Amino acid sequence: MIEAAIYGYGNIGSGVAEVIEKNQDRIEKAAGQGVHVKYVLDLREFEGDPVQEKLVHDVDVIVNDPEVKIICETMGGNEPAYTFTKKALMAGKSVCTSNKELVANHGAELIKIAEEHRCNYFFEASVGGGIPIIRTLNSALKQENILSISGIVNGTTNYILTKMEKDGAAFDEVLREAQEKGFAERNPEADVEGYDACRKIAILSSLMSGKTVDYKDIYTEGITKLTTTDFLYAEKMEMTVKLLAMSRQTQEGYLTMVTPMLIGPENPLCSVNGVFNAISVKGNMLGDSMYYGRGAGKLPTASAVVADVVEAARFMGTHLPIDWSEEKAVLAKMPLSRRRFFVRLDRNKVPEARAAAEFGNGRVVFLEQCPDEYGYITPVMSEGEFAEKFEKLDGAITRIRMEE
Amino acid sequence: MIEAAIYGYGNIGSGVAEVIEKNQDRIEKAAGQGVHVKYVLDLREFEGDPVQEKLVHDVDVIVNDPEVKIICETMGGNEPAYTFTKKALMAGKSVCTSNKELVANHGAELIKIAEEHRCNYFFEASVGGGIPIIRTLNSALKQENILSISGIVNGTTNYILTKMEKDGAAFDEVLREAQEKGFAERNPEADVEGYDACRKIAILSSLMSGKTVDYKDIYTEGITKLTTTDFLYAEKMEMTVKLLAMSRQTQEGYLTMVTPMLIGPENPLCSVNGVFNAISVKGNMLGDSMYYGRGAGKLPTASAVVADVVEAARFMGTHLPIDWSEEKAVLAKMPLSRRRFFVRLDRNKVPEARAAAEFGNGRVVFLEQCPDEYGYITPVMSEGEFAEKFEKLDGAITRIRMEE
Repeated sequence: MIEAAIYGYGNIGSGVAEVIEKNQDRIEKAAGQGVHVKYVLDLREFEGDPVQEKLVHDVDVIVNDPEVKIICETMGGNEPAYTFTKKALMAGKSVCTSNKELVANHGAELIKIAEEHRCNYFFEASVGGGIPIIRTLNSALKQENILSISGIVNGTTNYILTKMEKDGAAFDEVLREAQEKGFAERNPEADVEGYDACRKIAILSSLMSGKTVDYKDIYTEGITKLTTTDFLYAEKMEMTVKLLAMSRQTQEGYLTMVTPMLIGPENPLCSVNGVFNAISVKGNMLGDSMYYGRGAGKLPTASAVVADVVEAARFMGTHLPIDWSEEKAVLAKMPLSRRRFFVRLDRNKVPEARAAAEFGNGRVVFLEQCPDEYGYITPVMSEGEFAEKFEKLDGAITRIRMEE
Repeated sequence: MIEAAIYGYGNIGSGVAEVIEKNQDRIEKAAGQGVHVKYVLDLREFEGDPVQEKLVHDVDVIVNDPEVKIICETMGGNEPAYTFTKKALMAGKSVCTSNKELVANHGAELIKIAEEHRCNYFFEASVGGGIPIIRTLNSALKQENILSISGIVNGTTNYILTKMEKDGAAFDEVLREAQEKGFAERNPEADVEGYDACRKIAILSSLMSGKTVDYKDIYTEGITKLTTTDFLYAEKMEMTVKLLAMSRQTQEGYLTMVTPMLIGPENPLCSVNGVFNAISVKGNMLGDSMYYGRGAGKLPTASAVVADVVEAARFMGTHLPIDWSEEKAVLAKMPLSRRRFFVRLDRNKVPEARAAAEFGNGRVVFLEQCPDEYGYITPVMSEGEFAEKFEKLDGAITRIRMEE
């Protein structure tokens, strides 16, 4: 029996305890021995809950117990998770985490510490919840030169966008409903502004490049400006709008961004609806593959943590290398990246001939419901060139990027 | 540098050589050292091809060379692949195969031989081509109790069905076109009768159960009886028809089958078109996840073989356990399984009231184009009960199973 501890008994942490208990027979078979939760670290008391007998408030009780071999870090946030994780790794205990914030900030460093202490820092649950994307990149696709990754990695925003598309509802209204249903946080900024997706694509891009892609360097745009009218145009074009997190190898480096994007039905991400996540990976030999599942939620995320626990148990005493160094990856400059743009223009201020003169020959899209404006699909052009023209054009209402 | 050999220099075998050459830098990084192809086994001569210098006709040259540590078996078929694989494993060489026939027939036995000789028998490429589904089941989802697997695992039939759906073309016509394009074999039986899908779901079901699911015990129905009219009905119902390979835990054992099935747009398999494959997995904690990619083709399949080569190289000298014993899994009896059925009935022989009396209260579907018949969706009933009624009903034209 391997002794484990859980840092943080919130939604995910209690899920980890539940998965370990309910699927003990599977875990024992897979890991070669059972896994037992000896301690749960939390500042709260949980009176009357059976977890009380395992509860400790002092991390050193866990770190100093040589019996404990594996830690599940489900606290979230940078501190004290960072300090507590380092302590554990330095004591030779493997850490399995769902904490995307910490992984995005200190992934390479923590992997290095794990290597030095012959243990592992695993983070399957930090991206895509129940989708085993980290393991796929670290193991199943290691022979591939990964050319691009693009995905829907935030369930809250995908739920909101799906509702806006299907029900024609406004952003604020759907957000409120999502908050009532528990699909969105009371402070929804991290989700709707794209910050959560940004951390996740930083992690995936780091694994793709083998170097560190700093999330602070990633162009990030959320979904708060999208309107029901945008979705009417999307429908007219037989497309939809998804919040995509993307990273692509280019000659100038990795082009990485989070942005709402118009995609068509031939893109498998187009039909990923509701709280589901999906991540599409293009390899130089493999071509396209996609991984789909529940991107969040207590049990799917906890299951991913436990998958790492099984791996840590199987390879106890061995450090399994993860190709992610502290060196910074070279990122391509956003203004140089090229694509089509969908712009909405005021018909009275910008006649169609003017749009063609400004942006080059494109396609006009009319919407019966909005006779005073029209949509225009530009030819492929650089972000920089487009932005310059769009910003100074009186009568330009809004713009959405289009997939190439 | 690790020395390897390839058994069979056909489409996949030459692809393996290509992937190893082109992605050598990735392989070296992932495996800790480079991989070099020392021998290629084939009866043919390949005059003028650079492969000639590695070509051997006698398997014993490879088996008796202690330098060779890894074999890529891409011959296909049972013999001589079975004998040659056993020889290699018994000599302590890991074997990475794309041979679904051999894996379905002798998987458990070959894994056992590998264990006894501290090497590995890996078969990622045997199911789903470039989709890393075997590794996902064997590692990433090992903590899960897998409740069901269902997938589109044959690209040829999915290409044909997609064409029938989108173009309203007849089966024979699309098959001929697929043969001309190289998407279907000259003898298409293994694909269109579902035999290929049957081997693949046998392998997946064995990994799901930890025991052997014999492909000969799996109910298998192909797509040759499907018509353009069936697709008109499907369209009317806002559904489509896919050839699904399925396995599900039930109280009576594993219910495993290959059959065309009507599925709706809320099923993520519904939008998997053309030669793409996708496999949906339901775990007791994880819920639904899906894995999508190129199910066949030279390079995607070869890439999956090379993924196994990297794994074998990383863990050289260690047997990585795969939970698949020779003991036979208990299978549920097909006649007891329950679902809805879609039946087409001759309007003159079976009035609608009669359909309700025969099958119970269901839903009638009319098709303008076919005034002499109608479709009927039965309530949920057992296969056995349905078959008895359907077979003796004069005026019953055809039936398609519907997903629950």
